[in-house]
Amino acid sequence: MLTLYYAPATCALASMIALEEAGADYEAVAVDFRKNAQRDPEYLKVNPKGRVPALVTGRGVLTETPALLAFIAQSFPEARLASLDDPFAFAREQEFNSYLCSTVHVAHAHRPRAYRWADDEAAMEAMKRKVPQNMYDCFALIETAMLAGPWVIGERYSICDAYLFTVAQWLEGDGVDPARLPKVAAHRQRMSERPAVRKALARERSAQS
Amino acid sequence: MLTLYYAPATCALASMIALEEAGADYEAVAVDFRKNAQRDPEYLKVNPKGRVPALVTGRGVLTETPALLAFIAQSFPEARLASLDDPFAFAREQEFNSYLCSTVHVAHAHRPRAYRWADDEAAMEAMKRKVPQNMYDCFALIETAMLAGPWVIGERYSICDAYLFTVAQWLEGDGVDPARLPKVAAHRQRMSERPAVRKALARERSAQS
Repeated sequence: MLTLYYAPATCALASMIALEEAGADYEAVAVDFRKNAQRDPEYLKVNPKGRVPALVTGRGVLTETPALLAFIAQSFPEARLASLDDPFAFAREQEFNSYLCSTVHVAHAHRPRAYRWADDEAAMEAMKRKVPQNMYDCFALIETAMLAGPWVIGERYSICDAYLFTVAQWLEGDGVDPARLPKVAAHRQRMSERPAVRKALARERSAQS
Repeated sequence: MLTLYYAPATCALASMIALEEAGADYEAVAVDFRKNAQRDPEYLKVNPKGRVPALVTGRGVLTETPALLAFIAQSFPEARLASLDDPFAFAREQEFNSYLCSTVHVAHAHRPRAYRWADDEAAMEAMKRKVPQNMYDCFALIETAMLAGPWVIGERYSICDAYLFTVAQWLEGDGVDPARLPKVAAHRQRMSERPAVRKALARERSAQS
């Protein structure tokens, strides 16, 4: 039995979608960011980083979205969520996920969490002003060079799709018009029709109400 | 035959160390950041992101350090650079590398590359001021919760060590006194005695002269 600690509208959605796609038996526990519950001593025992996602397994806790996605893919090989027998193809998937976590998620985070990188108000405002352009630039590269279609790596659905969908959910809030990114928009639509994605989004909504 | 595009003092060092540890047959090509060669049209054909590292393989180009490290480990299994037969142990290694790329490298980058996240000079200065504290906080977590010792995952050397050593090289420049992090400092010393690390550093130096 796995337990996923998550918060709505965070990157934890990617792991939740992957667990649903894998048909995994898991419990989802919401961490209430509005109450700053990610800094509660109890939660810091689960994840000392004070962030989500965190996946509690029989052998210990795992964090960091790319690691969780690869772990889910390797733990449920019959779901075929990653290229498990081809190091080059697997590396392509890790490359995509690594770009999302180290560049795209970071570009986004400068709006809601600019306080991480500067202490004064004016600097935080300056960072927030640049988010729409940075997020557009990131997604323009995804649109033109990374999203093969219909799925990220081509004909086969993978963990990359769960992660891209998750990060693309932030575009409107970050001031990017999704209509400027037609391939990404079509991918989002395609994703939103998958039963696993619907289930994960419904679970998120139930935690918010 | 593999070709690694790199620049001195960047995260590309991690992949170069891993290639040396694996005994790989590879060519190293320096990209001259002082001449902004990473934005040359020729290089952008190799890596449209305009960054290093990029690894040219017989099947195409791979980028992003965590992806390259896992690829090298999987391509040279006899070097035993990752836990290839244990999804949980492999995920722990990916978790570590993912933290370095998405949090620690990003904390560092706000000093040399603050222009990525804001356009005005005062905001960039504000970001630079926070780098010593952010880098110290990241490494304090590594010191207390992530570095098992003597190597990152414990008794066995892995790709995580190559990456940690690389990022720890930036501490002095980022205003962190390494003496505050004795386990990290001992790890750097241990790493600097490995033949593969010496070879990689010598290759870097020859490109700089």
